[in-house]
Amino acid sequence: MKAKVYVTLKPSVLDPQGKAIQHSVELLGFNAIADVRQGKYFEIELDDKLNEQSARESAERMAREVLSNPVIEDYRVEIE
Amino acid sequence: MKAKVYVTLKPSVLDPQGKAIQHSVELLGFNAIADVRQGKYFEIELDDKLNEQSARESAERMAREVLSNPVIEDYRVEIE
Repeated sequence: MKAKVYVTLKPSVLDPQGKAIQHSVELLGFNAIADVRQGKYFEIELDDKLNEQSARESAERMAREVLSNPVIEDYRVEIE
Repeated sequence: MKAKVYVTLKPSVLDPQGKAIQHSVELLGFNAIADVRQGKYFEIELDDKLNEQSARESAERMAREVLSNPVIEDYRVEIE
């Protein structure tokens, strides 16, 4: 069973890395770009003996306690 | 219009960062984890005057030419 965890900065937090990417792609000729924000993405392969419920709980706990900083970041978990 | 770009290492490429995360979460008491791989995630806000077709083309080109290294990474683009 696979969990996908997306970690993004909260909307109120400035993202200088995203701004740098936006500036660079504009210099490279891409236009029509209003904003770029960078986040992190994790693919977690869980043991197949877990059911969906416990896989989700385990991935949510990992996202909250380890993979994200809840002060400045949001996370989202998908199980598939 | 918003594009989401996911960049992941190709399956054949070793991911030492993911292995380090996996080792750390196991030390913290998480078990039933078979594998962790880390990728990058970008949210790109595009001008609303673009239609879905040209937004997708623009985001795909940016993912291919700027945001990923096609030698070792795969990318996936979603438009919403």
